[in-house]
Amino acid sequence: MTSESNSSPGHDAVIRLVAESSEWLCGNGPCSDIVISSRARLARNIAGYPFVGKASAEHRSQIIAEVQNVLSDRIGNRRTTTINVEQLSEMDRQFLTERQLISRELSRGEGPRAVIISAGERHSVMINEEDHLRLQVLHSGFALDECWQECDALDDQLESQIPFSFHPQLGYLTACPTNVGTGLRVSVMLHLPALRMTREIQKVHQAAQKIKLAVRGLYGEGSQALGDFYQISNQLTLGKTERQLITEVREVVQRIVEWERKVRRMLVKDREPWLMDQVSRAWGTLTSARSISSEETMHLLSSVRMGLQMDLLDGRDAALINELFIQTQPAHLQRIHGDSLATERRNIVRASWLQKRLAEQSS
Amino acid sequence: MTSESNSSPGHDAVIRLVAESSEWLCGNGPCSDIVISSRARLARNIAGYPFVGKASAEHRSQIIAEVQNVLSDRIGNRRTTTINVEQLSEMDRQFLTERQLISRELSRGEGPRAVIISAGERHSVMINEEDHLRLQVLHSGFALDECWQECDALDDQLESQIPFSFHPQLGYLTACPTNVGTGLRVSVMLHLPALRMTREIQKVHQAAQKIKLAVRGLYGEGSQALGDFYQISNQLTLGKTERQLITEVREVVQRIVEWERKVRRMLVKDREPWLMDQVSRAWGTLTSARSISSEETMHLLSSVRMGLQMDLLDGRDAALINELFIQTQPAHLQRIHGDSLATERRNIVRASWLQKRLAEQSS
Repeated sequence: MTSESNSSPGHDAVIRLVAESSEWLCGNGPCSDIVISSRARLARNIAGYPFVGKASAEHRSQIIAEVQNVLSDRIGNRRTTTINVEQLSEMDRQFLTERQLISRELSRGEGPRAVIISAGERHSVMINEEDHLRLQVLHSGFALDECWQECDALDDQLESQIPFSFHPQLGYLTACPTNVGTGLRVSVMLHLPALRMTREIQKVHQAAQKIKLAVRGLYGEGSQALGDFYQISNQLTLGKTERQLITEVREVVQRIVEWERKVRRMLVKDREPWLMDQVSRAWGTLTSARSISSEETMHLLSSVRMGLQMDLLDGRDAALINELFIQTQPAHLQRIHGDSLATERRNIVRASWLQKRLAEQSS
Repeated sequence: MTSESNSSPGHDAVIRLVAESSEWLCGNGPCSDIVISSRARLARNIAGYPFVGKASAEHRSQIIAEVQNVLSDRIGNRRTTTINVEQLSEMDRQFLTERQLISRELSRGEGPRAVIISAGERHSVMINEEDHLRLQVLHSGFALDECWQECDALDDQLESQIPFSFHPQLGYLTACPTNVGTGLRVSVMLHLPALRMTREIQKVHQAAQKIKLAVRGLYGEGSQALGDFYQISNQLTLGKTERQLITEVREVVQRIVEWERKVRRMLVKDREPWLMDQVSRAWGTLTSARSISSEETMHLLSSVRMGLQMDLLDGRDAALINELFIQTQPAHLQRIHGDSLATERRNIVRASWLQKRLAEQSS
């Protein structure tokens, strides 16, 4: 880790990410009209160490070193960067959370903890979150199999040199019983503005609950469905094979995607003028506001994204709209701007950033 | 009246007005940052006829003919058009009301009644409204003296050949006692967005009431202050000379104009980012909405008008914004479009008209 020799290496790594765009935001994956991203994550603990909650700072540092050592700057053929989360400022931690690279739990935690990120932000390995390791693979669009295969390969890469806590009957052991077994959680981030507009989104929640799938917001557990983003994931990890878990989530997501598409078609058929007005006003406000909150931005970008996918707006770049969802969030905005900004000033900088980025897109 | 030989002469006259722009909307009069227009009107009744409320249809028709005959297609050196209001459709009457050429009372009345309009819409003579005659002169900006002088000249032109009901002690006699005496009402239409934003507008109402001036909306008595337009006028017409009445209104209006200017300066000083945001978003919504109500349009145009006058928006034509206040109202919009339109369709046509007219103005 060359960056680790720097006086604030984690911060430098964050700064390098500011200039880059995450692969999973490119917006060209399967079903990208509705599916933003797919993710697989495995919870693992290293045999011979206490669980994170009971581990000493020394143990935790050893775990980080051991994982770094095994990976040796590579996941598969991608180069990696390790970021020492404990040394990061609150804003840099928020930045990584906004970017979906670490969880709010890792961000808010204490003591030695880290994240290892592969080039393009395809993989992230959180170390000393709730479990010793959380292996995560993120893809653009609806691509659960690819996520699972790459996560499985990463798991193999590590397991070939690190003994994981494993029980012959129960499977992989984890700090929280809900993760015991496969330790696998697969999730899909969906953009469901039409289901929200028609209030059918409640039925999605109810249907998912019945078959024990979770519906969450952009930042996982307990977060709001900002920008009409909904994350669907399995809640159980025990008693089923990885293939079964993935198939279950895939089938439900397929039904929701079809449902959202059907409601979009219905909206165009029955309420096209209203819909055009919503989409066009959203674009008008995003390009003319001189001060705008993160919430309003998410809400308006959601309408624009839908308008683009439904061909109600022409000549705009879908990848840019995806990027703006992330770039207009508080920590990203401040990192792009270079300074810490109070809320009022941030709203002004956000508006001017939107204007600048969207100006090239006006038809 | 050549147009009167046509099968629907009033309607034809309205159609000709659709293509024209009223002089008082040009936005280049004195204090036009705040004062839209000034108006003087005289209430007169012709001796020998009962007041309108008691006059037969025959009497009322005779009054119209007598006034037409005296004016003989001219007020001063301007050509006139007579519009038979009784024969007009409701939409055409609404059109003339929106255009400030007739009152809501004349529009909603019954029986023979008419309006004579001079070229550029400088003068309008309502016949058989509450009184036999209501002589009105309208100017752009703060120009009460000019209004009064031209109204006085019109009064002389008529009085040289028509005997008006006049009482040596009371002055001119009118149907309603509040108009007895001079029969003069002078009014000024003010655009007061900053006083409304800072809620100081209540104090304007209170101050005006104390000195017996009326504060009304765009369409006179009982109308709402749409688009931040407020009409200030004298309530009493008796016991003072015309000069005194005009001076009173002028002095109060001068104070309100200074007050609005002061609050605008204060807003720029203390809340410029917020103000810029309001103005810029208003422009963004006006140019991007695909469906918009008359009320929302008035509200947004008001912000844009203020932004223009305060140099917060560049390169836009003030006269166009003034015109759009009138052109986007329901009857104008339908007359421009050529057809009667249901509300929903009207909102779509309004949005596309705004987009078309404002497109040339985008900076």
